Amino acid sequence: MANPIDFYFDFSSPYGYLASTRIDALAARHGRSVFWRPILLGAVFKINGQQPLTSIPLKGHYTALDLARSARLLKVPFKLPSKFPIGATTPSRAFYWVHDREPVLAKRLAQALYTAYFSEDRDISSPEATVNIAAKVGVDKRELEEALNDPAVKERLRAEVDAAIGRGVFGSPYFVVDGEPFWGSDRLDQVDKWLETGGW
Amino acid sequence: MANPIDFYFDFSSPYGYLASTRIDALAARHGRSVFWRPILLGAVFKINGQQPLTSIPLKGHYTALDLARSARLLKVPFKLPSKFPIGATTPSRAFYWVHDREPVLAKRLAQALYTAYFSEDRDISSPEATVNIAAKVGVDKRELEEALNDPAVKERLRAEVDAAIGRGVFGSPYFVVDGEPFWGSDRLDQVDKWLETGGW
Repeated sequence: MANPIDFYFDFSSPYGYLASTRIDALAARHGRSVFWRPILLGAVFKINGQQPLTSIPLKGHYTALDLARSARLLKVPFKLPSKFPIGATTPSRAFYWVHDREPVLAKRLAQALYTAYFSEDRDISSPEATVNIAAKVGVDKRELEEALNDPAVKERLRAEVDAAIGRGVFGSPYFVVDGEPFWGSDRLDQVDKWLETGGW
Repeated sequence: MANPIDFYFDFSSPYGYLASTRIDALAARHGRSVFWRPILLGAVFKINGQQPLTSIPLKGHYTALDLARSARLLKVPFKLPSKFPIGATTPSRAFYWVHDREPVLAKRLAQALYTAYFSEDRDISSPEATVNIAAKVGVDKRELEEALNDPAVKERLRAEVDAAIGRGVFGSPYFVVDGEPFWGSDRLDQVDKWLETGGW
């Protein structure tokens, strides 16, 4: 069976959101599955001194325009959230906890979280918001609430973030296809071609 | 007659080089011409604290890989120069001086400078290199040597860079199509669609 594609993203990353609406269908056309892996870009930015795109002078205004324009082109609902960026620790912990039990449900949860944040302007950083959105897609509310306070669940996310950094992941979205890294939603066309041709 | 497309680039920018190999043919398919406008990203970086891509931890290694891969896909000769980045003041001054006399020749000069730097690993930052490359495409050597020391020529470039910053240009390549800004060689597909549809 072919390797799954690793899809690294931060729940606070708008380009990650845009990519999340395309990656599974793209991979499926080539008979591939996708392993969604939320990470925390804040941990990366501490290492390399980057800042969130929208807070860089000159770049911020353009980025807002580019996101809206790219979303319209993809026909994806999008609204830059009133609170941006947010810390994505809680939704990311929830994701891995669900993933280790029901992988398909975890992807549905990630899609619901991304939609809530980037299309409905809901702040998904709090346990309340995460748990409510999770309950809507069928996750047990009480169990998830408990899990979010479990040291093992915290450690699970930390290990994922460390592994991603160890692998060189520095942005969102970031894809690894058979060992080949691709950064940015702009690179999905190259990912598509790479899967088709096996590389060039 | 339709507006020309403004193409802002830094002679030290590898993605600017990649875009320079595509923009004129792309524009011509839509009956558009392209106004090439070299700028100095150093002046922008002073304002917004950015760094050259290849010197950012984690990002540098990936960028080298991405450039080589993108160049192969476009079938464009490319080699990351031994000396990178360089200050592009001299080649940029030469460009505008030639441009104000023979616009078509200026574009040929820009292409020759970009090729020398990104495919033949020649450091184009010095007056000697710039003048020699210019002579090869048919620019008068003595006249250009004198022009490079002319305060009016220095001022010409400074004014272009200031105007670009005033317009919000913060990267290379950067395109403006009928007032709509597009940043990055990755956005050429959107530029193409924008020209085709008039926007979305």
